[in-house]
Amino acid sequence: MGGVNTTRRTPGRPRSTEVDEAIAQACRELLVEGGYPAMTIESVAERAGVTRPTIYRRWPSKSHMVWDVIFTTPADAVVIGDTDDLRGDVELWVSATMAFFGRPEVARAFPALLTEQPLEETQQARLRDPVREQVAARLRRAVREGELHQSVDPGLVFDMVVGLAVYRGSVPQGGDPKPAARVISDQVLLGMILRP
Amino acid sequence: MGGVNTTRRTPGRPRSTEVDEAIAQACRELLVEGGYPAMTIESVAERAGVTRPTIYRRWPSKSHMVWDVIFTTPADAVVIGDTDDLRGDVELWVSATMAFFGRPEVARAFPALLTEQPLEETQQARLRDPVREQVAARLRRAVREGELHQSVDPGLVFDMVVGLAVYRGSVPQGGDPKPAARVISDQVLLGMILRP
Repeated sequence: MGGVNTTRRTPGRPRSTEVDEAIAQACRELLVEGGYPAMTIESVAERAGVTRPTIYRRWPSKSHMVWDVIFTTPADAVVIGDTDDLRGDVELWVSATMAFFGRPEVARAFPALLTEQPLEETQQARLRDPVREQVAARLRRAVREGELHQSVDPGLVFDMVVGLAVYRGSVPQGGDPKPAARVISDQVLLGMILRP
Repeated sequence: MGGVNTTRRTPGRPRSTEVDEAIAQACRELLVEGGYPAMTIESVAERAGVTRPTIYRRWPSKSHMVWDVIFTTPADAVVIGDTDDLRGDVELWVSATMAFFGRPEVARAFPALLTEQPLEETQQARLRDPVREQVAARLRRAVREGELHQSVDPGLVFDMVVGLAVYRGSVPQGGDPKPAARVISDQVLLGMILRP
């Protein structure tokens, strides 16, 4: 695994793509194997077959590198539907969010990154957009169409689902069966109070 | 701040109480000042005015020490009411949970602890009990009394509120005003779907 032959590269293909992928893969492997605190720039460089300066030219610190590596995918992978089926749309988002924060490398890295305060603004923005905005737009549409309460707080709903996903990704569930995305969506949408 | 005079101690009072408190205070201070990754057993010992062996006699590792320090209080502080007002009872628990995970030393330490897998069983148990069981008991009572759906999943509700509290404790909220415990309780209890 890992290792990039920098002398033999495909003509026309930018070298950085290959190196970036080798670094990303090394990062993911080392996170899963030993966790975030034990991982160093040095260990990533060695596993990826690159030099430390190669990494430092891209990122100023370990946390910047890991942010980039784990948040490369979700902008594509985590989405909310925009169909006429509100429950289905929300369920899709919940399911993708649980899957993302349940990935071994994300579960090992994300909570650790949260403790490295203060998060820089670019990292905060990456954390929030565009999924946060998509979810808010879908919920506001449902309010306009009379499906949801006027009082819905999209930011609260977003943080509740992401918080649950982060927490369940990190804390073993013991005897509880892992609830499906539909159960979680229904809890968020319907609440617990009996209908009158 | 910190520092324990181990030569002058109150007669009849066990020395360990004083030392424990000095270590706990040193831990909290260093977590707030520099975060979990930067904190070492050495720095805690120095700040507390004790030797490293004094700390290692109590805990086998930094994470064990920090777990003990940050979870000493919540068993008393985080509770759920057991009155006849379900919304008030839940609001009390939500409010205490948000306050606990919003404490600076907890926000800096808790997410980092989550990445130190596998959590040992005693730590998992400490994380879950007794509050998790109290919440489940209150919700089951409400189901019996016809206030809540039969389908309520107390573990899901617990993880959702704790997950939200952990996440909001760590991630700056940007422009969003911090929602009050009542808004969060209502989201959990009532959901978002318009009543028929």
